[in-house]
Amino acid sequence: MSQASGHVVDAGLPIDDWAAKQLVAVEAALVAWVPSDAPAGLGQAMRYGVLDGGKRLRPLLVLAAAGAVGGDLQAALRAAVAVELIHAYSLVHDDMPCMDNDVLRRGKPTVHVQYGQAKAMLAGDAMQALAFEVLTPEPTLSATPVMPPALQARLTALLARAAGHAGMAGGQAIDLASIGHTLDEAALRDMHRRKTGALLQASVLMGAACGHTTAAAWQALADYGAAIGLAFQVVDDILDVTQSAAKLGKTAGKDQHHNKPTYVTVLGLQAARRHAQALREQALAALLRADLGPAAALLSQLADKVVEREN
Amino acid sequence: MSQASGHVVDAGLPIDDWAAKQLVAVEAALVAWVPSDAPAGLGQAMRYGVLDGGKRLRPLLVLAAAGAVGGDLQAALRAAVAVELIHAYSLVHDDMPCMDNDVLRRGKPTVHVQYGQAKAMLAGDAMQALAFEVLTPEPTLSATPVMPPALQARLTALLARAAGHAGMAGGQAIDLASIGHTLDEAALRDMHRRKTGALLQASVLMGAACGHTTAAAWQALADYGAAIGLAFQVVDDILDVTQSAAKLGKTAGKDQHHNKPTYVTVLGLQAARRHAQALREQALAALLRADLGPAAALLSQLADKVVEREN
Repeated sequence: MSQASGHVVDAGLPIDDWAAKQLVAVEAALVAWVPSDAPAGLGQAMRYGVLDGGKRLRPLLVLAAAGAVGGDLQAALRAAVAVELIHAYSLVHDDMPCMDNDVLRRGKPTVHVQYGQAKAMLAGDAMQALAFEVLTPEPTLSATPVMPPALQARLTALLARAAGHAGMAGGQAIDLASIGHTLDEAALRDMHRRKTGALLQASVLMGAACGHTTAAAWQALADYGAAIGLAFQVVDDILDVTQSAAKLGKTAGKDQHHNKPTYVTVLGLQAARRHAQALREQALAALLRADLGPAAALLSQLADKVVEREN
Repeated sequence: MSQASGHVVDAGLPIDDWAAKQLVAVEAALVAWVPSDAPAGLGQAMRYGVLDGGKRLRPLLVLAAAGAVGGDLQAALRAAVAVELIHAYSLVHDDMPCMDNDVLRRGKPTVHVQYGQAKAMLAGDAMQALAFEVLTPEPTLSATPVMPPALQARLTALLARAAGHAGMAGGQAIDLASIGHTLDEAALRDMHRRKTGALLQASVLMGAACGHTTAAAWQALADYGAAIGLAFQVVDDILDVTQSAAKLGKTAGKDQHHNKPTYVTVLGLQAARRHAQALREQALAALLRADLGPAAALLSQLADKVVEREN
């Protein structure tokens, strides 16, 4: 741990215990809100694509950020589920034959392998819509307390922009176009800031939106989110060449197989590792600027987990 | 025109002049809000999928309903664009090889033919996200007056539910599952209420949400929207067997080709035509119950257009 981040982490909350507890709530909400009874088996395909798997890093970021700013945790749970739905739908579509053509995800056959391409595409489409349904609960249909409409609108704005053409979908378009091409580090960074970083950063900001922050703290949290968003992808690129499929729960070596530029191909393995550490330091420095005191401990530890993860 | 609906229509607004003017505004908004500069050509594919084509029935319903209840027309324009983006994305995905495998739409090659399947899927995904971006304008980035956050949330709620598993995506799943099967009229109606009707009904309600209505008027407008939503599909099924591809701007006879149950196969052509007329009467009766007086004239005429259209 760096000198700079010492005081943030010293609050010493048991991150794994906290995370385990949050994930129970997130999983229960996903089970409750992703329909089992949608027509013609669509609900089963949606549930297959999002339940029982994944690290749930994005929900944890939402909930940790909301906790750090004293945010409404019921609203944050909706935000956590919504962002995970967007992430999960993007994987369903990304795995399809016309994209990465992947057959293994989270240790299971991918959705299109299990349910066919047409249902996989529709399930992804419906998961994206469901994310926005979850953010805008109907007062008369919901047993949970309804979020203030202004918060519903703010969360929708953040999530839609992170998911859309300027964010995740735009990054995927660059990714497609870059296959077999050489990218310099700046172009690689731009691609990953959109493809992976935008949604991770939005997770932090959606959590922050559930409470109150100064403009300075908001910007600092945005910087934190940007740094861990990029760090996540650098580590992803490293793990793709250093870990087995069994460990990853998905196909290993797929970047190389698809001849995609990565941080490892552009920087080399050792420099990529140093870059991940530098991004962790940037994230922790940004957290200090957010000036949240001990409340930032979970976000600090999540930054560590992003960089130190092994799958 | 039926006796019952007479007084509604007698206001005699020039619907075609009104529609032409509205469509100029809708097209200008689409040109402004669908990005030309999204990464890696994604914006071009999005624009190809939504600009320069289509009847824009959904935007006209939004704007007519908003006008009928004295709604905020700038908000209604955003709602109109958002609902058209959802409609357009659904066509882009529906035309793909794993779904209907269609090569002609609005008289042009479909998006996947023009840009490849991967970019077509991403363009559709980004168009769905953009719909929700348009509904939640950023105060600092938008030159147009910002909608009240409560209206942003309400429009998002209506659109997401119409687009999602219980609406359009669910209807498409039933459609897929019904290929080569026999459906009775009730099952056919359920499929079309979701697949086509939900978004048409949401168009009416999103327009109504831009103004103020009594609970009774809201319900009546919902009934109006449901009736024309179903009428639209009945007419679609009729046109699929009676019109040429040149007239439709898309492949004709495709339901039969795909061995899909339709109102024509289930009811026969003449009964399907009578059913369309009956649904028009239902729509006009519902409009009378909404008790909007002459302000409902445009909605009344749009019901006529839905049933009398030739493409």
